[in-house]
Amino acid sequence: MGRAGTLRTTLVLLVCLGSSPVRALKSQLFTRRGGSPSSSGISISYKTLYFDQKIDHFGFLEDGTFKQRYLVNDKHWQQPGGPIFFYTGNEGDITWFCNNTGFMWEIAEEFGAMLVFAEHRYYGESLPFGHDSYSDNKHLNYLTSEQALADFAVLIQNLKSTLPGAQNSPVIAIGGSYGGMLAAWFRMKYPHMVVGALASSAPIWQFPGMVPCGDFYKIVTQDFARSGSNCDKNIGMSWKAIENVSSTASGLQWLSEEFGLCTPLKNRNDVAGFKSWLQETWVNLAMVDYPYEANFLQPLPAWPIQVVCKYLSFSHSVPDDHLLHGVSQATKVYYNYTGSSPCLNTSQTATGSLGFIGWFYQACTEMVMPMCTDGVRDMFEPEEWNFQAFSDECNAMFGARPRAEWARAVYGGKDIAAHSNIIFSNGGLDPWSAGGVTHNITESLVSILIPDGAHHLDLRYSNDRDPPSVRAARALEVNYFRKWIKQARKHTHKATVFKMH
Amino acid sequence: MGRAGTLRTTLVLLVCLGSSPVRALKSQLFTRRGGSPSSSGISISYKTLYFDQKIDHFGFLEDGTFKQRYLVNDKHWQQPGGPIFFYTGNEGDITWFCNNTGFMWEIAEEFGAMLVFAEHRYYGESLPFGHDSYSDNKHLNYLTSEQALADFAVLIQNLKSTLPGAQNSPVIAIGGSYGGMLAAWFRMKYPHMVVGALASSAPIWQFPGMVPCGDFYKIVTQDFARSGSNCDKNIGMSWKAIENVSSTASGLQWLSEEFGLCTPLKNRNDVAGFKSWLQETWVNLAMVDYPYEANFLQPLPAWPIQVVCKYLSFSHSVPDDHLLHGVSQATKVYYNYTGSSPCLNTSQTATGSLGFIGWFYQACTEMVMPMCTDGVRDMFEPEEWNFQAFSDECNAMFGARPRAEWARAVYGGKDIAAHSNIIFSNGGLDPWSAGGVTHNITESLVSILIPDGAHHLDLRYSNDRDPPSVRAARALEVNYFRKWIKQARKHTHKATVFKMH
Repeated sequence: MGRAGTLRTTLVLLVCLGSSPVRALKSQLFTRRGGSPSSSGISISYKTLYFDQKIDHFGFLEDGTFKQRYLVNDKHWQQPGGPIFFYTGNEGDITWFCNNTGFMWEIAEEFGAMLVFAEHRYYGESLPFGHDSYSDNKHLNYLTSEQALADFAVLIQNLKSTLPGAQNSPVIAIGGSYGGMLAAWFRMKYPHMVVGALASSAPIWQFPGMVPCGDFYKIVTQDFARSGSNCDKNIGMSWKAIENVSSTASGLQWLSEEFGLCTPLKNRNDVAGFKSWLQETWVNLAMVDYPYEANFLQPLPAWPIQVVCKYLSFSHSVPDDHLLHGVSQATKVYYNYTGSSPCLNTSQTATGSLGFIGWFYQACTEMVMPMCTDGVRDMFEPEEWNFQAFSDECNAMFGARPRAEWARAVYGGKDIAAHSNIIFSNGGLDPWSAGGVTHNITESLVSILIPDGAHHLDLRYSNDRDPPSVRAARALEVNYFRKWIKQARKHTHKATVFKMH
Repeated sequence: MGRAGTLRTTLVLLVCLGSSPVRALKSQLFTRRGGSPSSSGISISYKTLYFDQKIDHFGFLEDGTFKQRYLVNDKHWQQPGGPIFFYTGNEGDITWFCNNTGFMWEIAEEFGAMLVFAEHRYYGESLPFGHDSYSDNKHLNYLTSEQALADFAVLIQNLKSTLPGAQNSPVIAIGGSYGGMLAAWFRMKYPHMVVGALASSAPIWQFPGMVPCGDFYKIVTQDFARSGSNCDKNIGMSWKAIENVSSTASGLQWLSEEFGLCTPLKNRNDVAGFKSWLQETWVNLAMVDYPYEANFLQPLPAWPIQVVCKYLSFSHSVPDDHLLHGVSQATKVYYNYTGSSPCLNTSQTATGSLGFIGWFYQACTEMVMPMCTDGVRDMFEPEEWNFQAFSDECNAMFGARPRAEWARAVYGGKDIAAHSNIIFSNGGLDPWSAGGVTHNITESLVSILIPDGAHHLDLRYSNDRDPPSVRAARALEVNYFRKWIKQARKHTHKATVFKMH
């Protein structure tokens, strides 16, 4: 039972993460908080454009179109033929990704590159059926990664054929997290559209049978273990303490007051939600454990887990209320660093720029990413991966069932050596690295490890406090870009020479 | 006007090719007649199996399945790990392709290979909605090449995970004509599923803007020009002669009697259909201009165009009835070689094993293959490629409009150099070679030319009268197969060694 109880939430409840006791779904949210775009003094400005995309690329019955939003900056573009850096948008508002992928903005000038940020269908403003896009499974039917990749392909085809000077522009796909998976898959499926791809923190192997389901939470736990003594152990003990305390009405009241919850806990179901919210808080901290203070949705200090762990360093067993006071102090680092939050809202842990329902639908169909905990190698309550329960929950929620083996069938699983020109970068602190490509596969399918990096740190603006590993990673990435562009130019030149004879 | 008049046929009429005056649609039929399976003394036997395929791989609303038929022969299979030759079925009954791809049967033993012939959805017995599959555009919506490729991928995934000894079996995709396009595209899109592909007579470039629209009919014309003196010229003059003769009722009657038509011509529309039927007859002859007598749907002599051209060798202008008598004699070579046909049926030119409506639908959606004639470089009446008219006809017929640029977007057009391990074989006599890959693209994307070959001659049973060029082609193909299998074994071995440490 506990957190794994059957999901009875509605679509509306889904946005309230704390109310959704389903581990599998929650953990599949690629939470990503915005960084400060101004740290390196580069100003972001772009044109907002819209492209008529077919709602269905893979069938001809639905012939309607929708407006796909994309953002363009050509300030530094050297036409004709200057490269195009193409961000393969993920599950959220594209302006948010645009503002938080400083790496692209920082290298545009030296490459003479145009920047394009393409919004993923069903997110932000790119809604195939407007307000009805999420109304039912019929309208959601075109929300798949394959359709999104086809959108990117058709958009690039159009840009190259309509923008003067773009015809021979080598395009490089860049993305982080799910957007990184899309960047990698885009190069795999449409290598004629992009000369290479940078897939940052892209867990393309977080699918059934590819990696152990427990690795994700093991990495979260390691982050806490290394950030303060006994930190992981104390969190590990907190679940039982919560159960103990919440067994009485007065305990529930105490817990609610101690954490300063906006909505007091009333019953066991609320407690399950509360624990999910806590668990997700730890996961989010692991993802955004960056080396510098950053103004996220909630402002965070540098190395936030170290700060959190200061409250969780008890070296011996302490009373439940003592332990939970430490936990509450720790959560407030994440939710109330500036001290401006009057209360903690367990229904939200991440930015509103992410499309939760859309991602839930994707997780419930194609993006089946097994997660599990055992309470031994990780600091969480044991919970097995149960595909059938997951499938039933998805069916209840969306009237659609996940296809566990499809991702492997369509994207190749671990057997991707036939492809080329993809960089897989992963941060050692990032739990998503568990499902990432962390070794070189071939000479041109390369892995870049950033031991001190959290979730796609390399895509963020450079910062004085960046560890040397991420500086080196970005330098390597730039080198690969140069190589790919050079390869492409050679190829184009050859083709032109052929044509002339 | 003339043959290019607006199409007003219904779906039912579509099967009657002679009644359909639309050039573009007709010429896109990959007509293929059966060869004699017994010439090399190899007996064909297979298990007929069925696999539950999702009707829609790219959406989750339609979660139903259908039975995909596939044929298996494992007589020579050396398990574990023996290769699998996988025929990527095209637009027709898979047993017919199975019986007419002797090459696979002939090499199975030396490779210790299993043979699998997978039927393409919507053809043969593999009907997603049974008898309703063709009832309207709603039911036809899942008839696309992408869905077919996904069927192949899921089927192979299933075979490898369920057949003992197949897990490490390298799979090679083999196909001819549209099946050859699928084989090539399958290797491009699912290189994790197949170590290489033999794409025989696969016109993957017969799409808008890739090759001149007139090349197809130019090659047909060349075949007739080289097979007898004045042969192409006399056919070229026959269209006007038909117009002249059919301008009167008695002329129509004479024409019908001269050709021994089952259904006499009654009006101009019939005459247009008659000319289309003739044109298609010449095209079919060009496709099946094989060097040996073969028992097709209509038995044909060796080098049938040479036989046909004996009736069309007038070296100077002859009266219309004289010329048309020659034409009628020529058509009878094709339709009545054995003399057993009581009359000629202009509503049929090809085997019933092909799924005409299905292919028309595909041509009307994804498979947009421009064709044109100018009457100068070819022996046909001039007819331009008119995409808008074509689109309107498709819309009237299927309620679906073709997407001219989609094939290029999804399959890369001429920019396919990033892929590997594909053989493109083409026959110099085959009009479809106009849209084929007839030069090496990279070291592992190779072209094999068979100057004396018609439509995928290399896939047919070997024959004593095979020209040296096709023998050499098959030997080369076998060499590439060996190389790919060796590569795959090395890779598998390496992966196993890695695992052990």
